[in-house]
Amino acid sequence: MRLLFLGDVVGRSGRKAAIAAIPELRRRYDLDFVVINGENAAGGFGISESILTELLDAGADVVTLGNHAFDQKETLVYIERHDRLIRPVNFPKGTPGRGAGLFKARNDADVLVVNVLGRVFMADMDCPFNAVDAEVEACPLGQGADVILIDFHAETTSEKQAFGHYFDGRASVIVGTHTHAPTADERILPSGTAYMSDAGMCGDYESVLGMQVEEPINRFRTRIPRQRFEPSDGPATVSGLAVEIDDRTGLATRVKAVRLGGVLQSSEPEFWLS
Amino acid sequence: MRLLFLGDVVGRSGRKAAIAAIPELRRRYDLDFVVINGENAAGGFGISESILTELLDAGADVVTLGNHAFDQKETLVYIERHDRLIRPVNFPKGTPGRGAGLFKARNDADVLVVNVLGRVFMADMDCPFNAVDAEVEACPLGQGADVILIDFHAETTSEKQAFGHYFDGRASVIVGTHTHAPTADERILPSGTAYMSDAGMCGDYESVLGMQVEEPINRFRTRIPRQRFEPSDGPATVSGLAVEIDDRTGLATRVKAVRLGGVLQSSEPEFWLS
Amino acid sequence: MRLLFLGDVVGRSGRKAAIAAIPELRRRYDLDFVVINGENAAGGFGISESILTELLDAGADVVTLGNHAFDQKETLVYIERHDRLIRPVNFPKGTPGRGAGLFKARNDADVLVVNVLGRVFMADMDCPFNAVDAEVEACPLGQGADVILIDFHAETTSEKQAFGHYFDGRASVIVGTHTHAPTADERILPSGTAYMSDAGMCGDYESVLGMQVEEPINRFRTRIPRQRFEPSDGPATVSGLAVEIDDRTGLATRVKAVRLGGVLQSSEPEFWLS
Amino acid sequence: MRLLFLGDVVGRSGRKAAIAAIPELRRRYDLDFVVINGENAAGGFGISESILTELLDAGADVVTLGNHAFDQKETLVYIERHDRLIRPVNFPKGTPGRGAGLFKARNDADVLVVNVLGRVFMADMDCPFNAVDAEVEACPLGQGADVILIDFHAETTSEKQAFGHYFDGRASVIVGTHTHAPTADERILPSGTAYMSDAGMCGDYESVLGMQVEEPINRFRTRIPRQRFEPSDGPATVSGLAVEIDDRTGLATRVKAVRLGGVLQSSEPEFWLS
Ligand SMILES: [Fe+2]
Ligand SMILES: [Fe+2]
Ligand SMILES: [Fe+2]
Ligand SMILES: [Fe+2]
Ligand SMILES: [Fe+2]
Ligand SMILES: [Fe+2]
Ligand SMILES: [Fe+2]
Ligand SMILES: [Fe+2]
Repeated sequence: MRLLFLGDVVGRSGRKAAIAAIPELRRRYDLDFVVINGENAAGGFGISESILTELLDAGADVVTLGNHAFDQKETLVYIERHDRLIRPVNFPKGTPGRGAGLFKARNDADVLVVNVLGRVFMADMDCPFNAVDAEVEACPLGQGADVILIDFHAETTSEKQAFGHYFDGRASVIVGTHTHAPTADERILPSGTAYMSDAGMCGDYESVLGMQVEEPINRFRTRIPRQRFEPSDGPATVSGLAVEIDDRTGLATRVKAVRLGGVLQSSEPEFWLS
Repeated sequence: MRLLFLGDVVGRSGRKAAIAAIPELRRRYDLDFVVINGENAAGGFGISESILTELLDAGADVVTLGNHAFDQKETLVYIERHDRLIRPVNFPKGTPGRGAGLFKARNDADVLVVNVLGRVFMADMDCPFNAVDAEVEACPLGQGADVILIDFHAETTSEKQAFGHYFDGRASVIVGTHTHAPTADERILPSGTAYMSDAGMCGDYESVLGMQVEEPINRFRTRIPRQRFEPSDGPATVSGLAVEIDDRTGLATRVKAVRLGGVLQSSEPEFWLS
Repeated sequence: MRLLFLGDVVGRSGRKAAIAAIPELRRRYDLDFVVINGENAAGGFGISESILTELLDAGADVVTLGNHAFDQKETLVYIERHDRLIRPVNFPKGTPGRGAGLFKARNDADVLVVNVLGRVFMADMDCPFNAVDAEVEACPLGQGADVILIDFHAETTSEKQAFGHYFDGRASVIVGTHTHAPTADERILPSGTAYMSDAGMCGDYESVLGMQVEEPINRFRTRIPRQRFEPSDGPATVSGLAVEIDDRTGLATRVKAVRLGGVLQSSEPEFWLS
Repeated sequence: MRLLFLGDVVGRSGRKAAIAAIPELRRRYDLDFVVINGENAAGGFGISESILTELLDAGADVVTLGNHAFDQKETLVYIERHDRLIRPVNFPKGTPGRGAGLFKARNDADVLVVNVLGRVFMADMDCPFNAVDAEVEACPLGQGADVILIDFHAETTSEKQAFGHYFDGRASVIVGTHTHAPTADERILPSGTAYMSDAGMCGDYESVLGMQVEEPINRFRTRIPRQRFEPSDGPATVSGLAVEIDDRTGLATRVKAVRLGGVLQSSEPEFWLS
């Protein structure tokens, strides 16, 4: 089975690029399942229902979130109508929406998608290890789920790498998001889980996290805000992770970073391009 | 001119790999200048004088540091004898050692090397933008220095990217260190500076930041230390950044990540392999 | 009923003062119940079994802890034998010891004591509000417990004050610890709970948090450790909170800070000194 | 000489109380100099020019600020016209306004007032110890200044206490602000400097930092903002520190917390009430 994960969509440039890329890549790579992180899709802050719908219509099976999940207040309401929108599972009990869902892939596999927030230098949430343990124990790989993808939205490489090794062999894919810079450490961990510390973003990399550079530089240097952060609107790079999964075991057999367009050096799963 | 930067050397595995790689890569790429970050060379924590000497003897022109600069107490003393060991420039006035130095490359170019600490989620230091401004103004590209390399040792991609854009055109190379995960965003910024958010480490990536996985997982899950952190001793990946610099302008003309050995996917400056 | 809570015991000076004060104050104030925070009793870091025993022998009914709970490794073992030693309730499941206990006071009242860690600028723990909700719902004031005391070990006044108001009317006493500086905001909240943002420490206040001033100043100024932190051994102030509780309702009727000895201005529950 | 410092004015309740109290206390205590922290005077966030004028008209000699200094954008402009408004001295070079000023007291003494931000768990600023060293060296006690008052706006008791001891003997008064909870540790340090870790606020203490309790509780529990923070409008406590200073040495001879009105227990410099 062929799975594609795309990192945080930032602003209009990233949105347009992702919406154009998803159907194109479904064809080109003959994909079975596509997940995309949408926490910055609406001008950098959260996601509106209309943008969510655009991403789903473009062919995303699931949209995940992060610390910006509810930056658009409407999300607190419409998330209840959209079971393909997954917010971090370790938000407090009572938070609207759900943190995990089981979805049917094109090849009929049952894919469990979990989104979870790290804690180091992030918001104070309950333990991500425990929260995901509970989900994975309730629906284990090879029993409840044919495939398990975990989007670990976290700041530090230490928490991400520890998390990856802790769940190695119990998930098909563990992919980090949040830093908006793709890491070059994608690989298959010793027990068979595909891992990448950060998928990077879908957005304009000639920027600071996808936002225009002037105001971030201003804030670092003067400590005084001068204007709002605005998404950078140069050409976006669509960034993510391509994983081939063994249908029998649910574990990864091949993995490659995806980077297409924009200013970054390209990467493609050439093993799917015959 | 051909410059190679290698990221944080972690423990024995990373040290052995780096020491073997430096002379080999000097030959293979016909390098003019080599800088390596050594802040974790001694069992993950700091650097001893004998390890420093080994790295220099292997062919490193300069060794940079970071938040772990003085984990080995002896460094406070011997750093005064070693002008090729550069610690973060924004340590408080009075800190032993120096934060910048001008070095002669093999091709006779004068290379200014600056090491500086970020502040976001790091130790409380004085402003890295101002500290480096002072160094670069005292010895500007094309006047005091033919080439300027800045090792920005920082946690977040936001501070690193803002820093890169702020100095774009005023340095030859801005390369991040500290997260121990290489980013895949190496490129030449609009005004000619080679940039990479993080060079990654020289160490065993089947690990948490180069350390064995059990104790980091234990601490994240239980919040109670059980043992010391120990470097992971599997095969290391030598990670860094290769930059070709225009001798006339001091700006970058070609850039490529270097990743050799270990469990990461390989990358090489194929433009230097004729 | 008359209850006394004493804040973090720091080092030998604080320990000696607390051990001398507890029996003396039991007599002078005719106390029914005494709780003391012991997280810094052993040289500033944690508590040994022999020190715990000394505090209990002196007349403490319960000893609470905090982020330094397990600085002395032996505590992980002996805490299981001591049901009068209470560690933060929101440590991860599986942590040795317990986070709450029901104890018989001298006047036969059943006193529930809970210790809990804040999260803002502290270790990453699960939600203190939820953790204490669970304890208080399992053993509510006026049903399972005649009196409820919560030691909220936290850094910021915002988290402490929000916590106090959230549990107002559901606990007899909410007292903060951890900052080692007594606040002057002790009072009875609108629904009857005695509240104080921080009880202060039992230790030498001519210090930094009870430790000798040289090394803390050195670290703030140079960012480089020079020596270990050592407890300051000048005369200690015994600091805490005196609360009179209505036996019928379990709510507070009178409250006054206690500060005796050392360099701070004195405070006593003069309403108990007839 | 008689000096009064009042802590952070919060919202309308705090403002009205402070404006009523300043002339009244000038009379009652026969004060020579009054400083008040105004960083939260405008609805909790910053200070407008009209509020500044009201505080000065009421009899404040100087108004200090903190991390909220520029929450009201207009402050960036009007601060240049008001030399009695002092913002933190360790803001980056180029920040509007000034961080220290020399003022004439009623008794003709020259009073140096410095405002400075701590760094631990605060914004990333340059070193407060160095910044204040520079001010105090430029205008030392007994030479350039008859009296020196430093408002250290910081989060942690450790940084505040270290700061106090570091400047002990070189300032007349070091008083902390920012936590909005008064500490009960006011005293004269060994070398003669009056010290108090936090002056507390002028505001309604039946609150969370002077703001209504519902939204802070909501954010701690749900991590999702529901509404803006609004100042609590119950009766305010005017909180601060009264210091008697030896005219000859500029050092403190008597010190007492001031707490008047509202829900806190009262405190007054009874040595000034004959
Ligand atoms: Fe994001
Ligand atoms: Fe994020
Ligand atoms: Fe490092
Ligand atoms: Fe580092
Ligand atoms: Fe403590
Ligand atoms: Fe503590
Ligand atoms: Fe304030
Ligand atoms: Fe503040």
